[in-house]
Amino acid sequence: MLENINSPKDLKKLNKSDIPVLAEEVREFIIKNVSNSGGHLASNLCLVDLTLVLHYLFDSPKDSIVFDVGHQAYTHKIVTGRRDNFHTLRSYNGLSGFPKRSESPHDIAETGHASTSISFALGLSTARKKSGDDGDVIAIIGDGAMTGGLALEAMNNISHVDNDLIVIVNNNEMSIGNNIGIISKTLNTTFNDKIVQGVYIKIKEMISAMPFGRIAGDVLSRLEGSIRSFITPSVIFRELGFKYFGPVDGHNYDELFETLEKVRETKGPRIIQVNTTKGKGYSIAEKNPARFHGIAPFDVETGMLKTSGGGKTFSSLFGECIINASKENDNIVAITAAMEGGTGLSDFAKLFRDRFYDVGIAEGHATTFAVGMSQTSIVPIVAIYATFMQRAVDQTIHDVGIMNANVKFMVDRAGLVPEDGDTHQGIYDIPLFKIIPNFTIFAPVAEEDFRQMFDITINMKTPTLMRYPKESIKQIDTAIIPQKVSVGKCHIVNEGHDYVVISYGTILNDIYSAIKNIKKDITLLNLVTLKPLDEEGIVRVCQNASRILIIEECVVMGGMGESVMEMLSKNDIFTNVRVHGVENKFIEVGTREKLLSIYKLDYDGVYSVIDEYFS
Amino acid sequence: MLENINSPKDLKKLNKSDIPVLAEEVREFIIKNVSNSGGHLASNLCLVDLTLVLHYLFDSPKDSIVFDVGHQAYTHKIVTGRRDNFHTLRSYNGLSGFPKRSESPHDIAETGHASTSISFALGLSTARKKSGDDGDVIAIIGDGAMTGGLALEAMNNISHVDNDLIVIVNNNEMSIGNNIGIISKTLNTTFNDKIVQGVYIKIKEMISAMPFGRIAGDVLSRLEGSIRSFITPSVIFRELGFKYFGPVDGHNYDELFETLEKVRETKGPRIIQVNTTKGKGYSIAEKNPARFHGIAPFDVETGMLKTSGGGKTFSSLFGECIINASKENDNIVAITAAMEGGTGLSDFAKLFRDRFYDVGIAEGHATTFAVGMSQTSIVPIVAIYATFMQRAVDQTIHDVGIMNANVKFMVDRAGLVPEDGDTHQGIYDIPLFKIIPNFTIFAPVAEEDFRQMFDITINMKTPTLMRYPKESIKQIDTAIIPQKVSVGKCHIVNEGHDYVVISYGTILNDIYSAIKNIKKDITLLNLVTLKPLDEEGIVRVCQNASRILIIEECVVMGGMGESVMEMLSKNDIFTNVRVHGVENKFIEVGTREKLLSIYKLDYDGVYSVIDEYFS
Repeated sequence: MLENINSPKDLKKLNKSDIPVLAEEVREFIIKNVSNSGGHLASNLCLVDLTLVLHYLFDSPKDSIVFDVGHQAYTHKIVTGRRDNFHTLRSYNGLSGFPKRSESPHDIAETGHASTSISFALGLSTARKKSGDDGDVIAIIGDGAMTGGLALEAMNNISHVDNDLIVIVNNNEMSIGNNIGIISKTLNTTFNDKIVQGVYIKIKEMISAMPFGRIAGDVLSRLEGSIRSFITPSVIFRELGFKYFGPVDGHNYDELFETLEKVRETKGPRIIQVNTTKGKGYSIAEKNPARFHGIAPFDVETGMLKTSGGGKTFSSLFGECIINASKENDNIVAITAAMEGGTGLSDFAKLFRDRFYDVGIAEGHATTFAVGMSQTSIVPIVAIYATFMQRAVDQTIHDVGIMNANVKFMVDRAGLVPEDGDTHQGIYDIPLFKIIPNFTIFAPVAEEDFRQMFDITINMKTPTLMRYPKESIKQIDTAIIPQKVSVGKCHIVNEGHDYVVISYGTILNDIYSAIKNIKKDITLLNLVTLKPLDEEGIVRVCQNASRILIIEECVVMGGMGESVMEMLSKNDIFTNVRVHGVENKFIEVGTREKLLSIYKLDYDGVYSVIDEYFS
Repeated sequence: MLENINSPKDLKKLNKSDIPVLAEEVREFIIKNVSNSGGHLASNLCLVDLTLVLHYLFDSPKDSIVFDVGHQAYTHKIVTGRRDNFHTLRSYNGLSGFPKRSESPHDIAETGHASTSISFALGLSTARKKSGDDGDVIAIIGDGAMTGGLALEAMNNISHVDNDLIVIVNNNEMSIGNNIGIISKTLNTTFNDKIVQGVYIKIKEMISAMPFGRIAGDVLSRLEGSIRSFITPSVIFRELGFKYFGPVDGHNYDELFETLEKVRETKGPRIIQVNTTKGKGYSIAEKNPARFHGIAPFDVETGMLKTSGGGKTFSSLFGECIINASKENDNIVAITAAMEGGTGLSDFAKLFRDRFYDVGIAEGHATTFAVGMSQTSIVPIVAIYATFMQRAVDQTIHDVGIMNANVKFMVDRAGLVPEDGDTHQGIYDIPLFKIIPNFTIFAPVAEEDFRQMFDITINMKTPTLMRYPKESIKQIDTAIIPQKVSVGKCHIVNEGHDYVVISYGTILNDIYSAIKNIKKDITLLNLVTLKPLDEEGIVRVCQNASRILIIEECVVMGGMGESVMEMLSKNDIFTNVRVHGVENKFIEVGTREKLLSIYKLDYDGVYSVIDEYFS
């Protein structure tokens, strides 16, 4: 059946009873493809049924479907004309793993980060109402994304509108990490208790019979809502101004059709709670949804990865370092924002349950919470991906920076990030954080300097930040890193004449190899700490150079190159200087190797850039 | 009495019945001082009574009081040893208008931006609990600040802790703008209805008599909470895991003492609702609390400002421009985040009520909401202060930037900001926003170019940002600005030889005067648009220069100077270049004139910098 579905129109030609059969084909198709390409599996399998019913009943793109995060839109992509390209998922020039407007008019909002869908949908439905457009706007958001401040701000704003807006809360009882908070609690109450319902009716009858006159009438109607609130999860949503529907079993077609048809015929802000199972239909994923959240290519029969991990990553090294340090120092705690596994904290969380804080998808709160903790002898270590640190900028300036708080950031997935595309790049962290006074910023190259930096960081009493990529740690020539890391001291890797290359982080490895092979008289400098810059050390190396090249895995606009250049100018060094880094554009999908190659930051790239500039 | 209060200890020596008398003295003292210095009046007068009772009953700094925003801490400052310095409020080298840890150990958290207090207090109380410290942590937050995502994230996180944490919600039924959302709605329900209470007791009795056995017992206890929820505002707070107290009349000492004594003897997370009146005790302010939120020096008898406003500001010019444009174009709407008055939108909001969106203190939502609106023919104009744009960085990158959305930002209070100190400076906007692809950034100098830029901006279909200071618009020599503003075209103000000065924004006025008086052969370039930079124009002017000086009212680290320098290097221009701007530190309190003078950005400052560099 699936091979005949090229648009939602084709879907509408089917009988309702065909949809569950189609769903099985879609599941098989997704499992087969993701097992080859890698991708988000568990979240997509749980939304197959809901997505098909939505496209069957509603009229996209006139009715707009806004996927929060966007890592659950595979079924949507498959039935909106992208089935035949689906094997290119998450590859260079292939389909994005998230909604992309360049791919289809059915992709109404581009996403990747959590918690944006309700704000976007509220804006879109407000604007549509203004222009008399009667299309529905449907936001689909997981219970995890509901813990983000932006979603809560948006929910708060719905209480005074009457837009045609549908919010579907996909309650799969698990975000990337553990879910927390009131909305989750509300959603997970048990509601089907017949006895409770019976009591409610009984009480209602009794109250109806009571002799209170007009006042009793008023009170009764208020009481009715109030009593109802304890047998449905809807008390908060109702108070927020929604009509509440559900809970619906997200894999039961009778319930899905019945509820969504009712919802479709209703107006105003509506909320539907749909309970789903992550990994639904693929038993291995159902049993271990966290492992199948985002997964590399795997064997469908066994669920095992096709290729092994490829060695120790910086994330796992961090996990090891924090465990070792925490055994010695009772004051160390770890904080993350639904990135327990990804940042390497899973073992720490098990070993030190009472020293581990997963605050949900709430990077701002993670940061200011850490500032509060740091006012005592506690040493909070906050582990967040570079791209998600964008969600805590004000907290790092206003709370960490101004209070000079003893908070340690471990910024994972810095630099070019594979497969996820433009929304997930870690190339803005340096521009965003180099500007904050009081911060010390480290850029490790390998295991040895990482360990030293980590030790320094937990012994400092001021804000620190370590940035490292999503990459296996390479064996390096120890010449590249300093024997002893010191804050504000750069490291001369290689001493030459005339020509100087300045860089930092893991790309130093390929730069060092390239310089050895280019066989020119080139000095190579490892910045080691990006803030503070080693003014004296850099000036000493650069003052007699004829050409200086700064290479960085970061945007040039706002990166370290600009700051080094300004620092040199302050010291009256006006040599021929050039910065080579990532240009000021949004980054395409590709493997890390592919992206490093495109931006000339792999071995061949830096070789050609260095060779050309020093010729 | 007040003259004997030098610390909370002195307060505790008084009888309870003395406190209301002292409160009158404190009010008089605040009114007198703020009428001289300017400052936040309405918010401080409403918290006099609560603050005195807190310091009487609790033991600061062992018990920590965390003020959200911090613009209501004057009474706290006065009774913690800063009475005699209070006349220096908000002046250079004087007391900060916000809590500052350098001033007193009683100032536990430094604030200025809204919605941080609960995250901070939750962190602090969590850490204290770990170390066995039994001090209470008390967060005081207004109903307005409760609309911010960070506060909501923190509330969401309290549901699974049992820390000794007190949240006092100061419900004055008004934030800076109009308050919105569920928590506000909850707080403003009427609760004291004796009849409702009577009905509740009656129903409880009836239910108790019902023959349901054990199940009825369970149901009854759940029902009890549920029924109670419709006669108190506490349903949500209780579900969030708080013990709820209140509502308390924040100006009634019997209620304040009784409730806070009870709260003090309780453990775990507690929430108290205190209803207060903004401007309490100064009738002119009570009648017009918005005008007395932040006010310049005024006459106590009449409430009139001591000096007149000093001419048209950029905020009021924006207000005028958007009204004119909106009369012609039905698609224009304005969005702000509780900055209606400050951004110049008050008249617009009155004239175009249905085209004005104040989303509360929720800059992130304001931004993504605008992106949603921009997907139609609507042209959303978002007006936010530069310092608060820090709270929407991810939304500008992930939603506006990546979707290349037609959203127009009006960034008010950019550059050095008077009186409010480090938390409110608008010097990070350029580093934060210059890095985002698709944005066009304008820096107006005066009225004429502002009007042109505004027109260009609303006719573009891509993201734009205009940045301008909190300053009266000056009459300028029209040579400084281009006759016709074009995107990506700089303007040669003055053509010379050898020496080039590059700048942007209002400081060009003093730079131009200085250059005229220095009488050297200096070219002056107005960048006009900061993004995109006019590469061709800048290169043409700079390629034969012997010295180039970039002057900017922005941090040097991450500012435009660095980007211009990098651009020149790309074009093989390695002349003697220097950047003069704000150094990488947090900025002290002072008037705008004082700050411009400290950072050598006023006439004398730029004169000396230019004269010295070109000598």
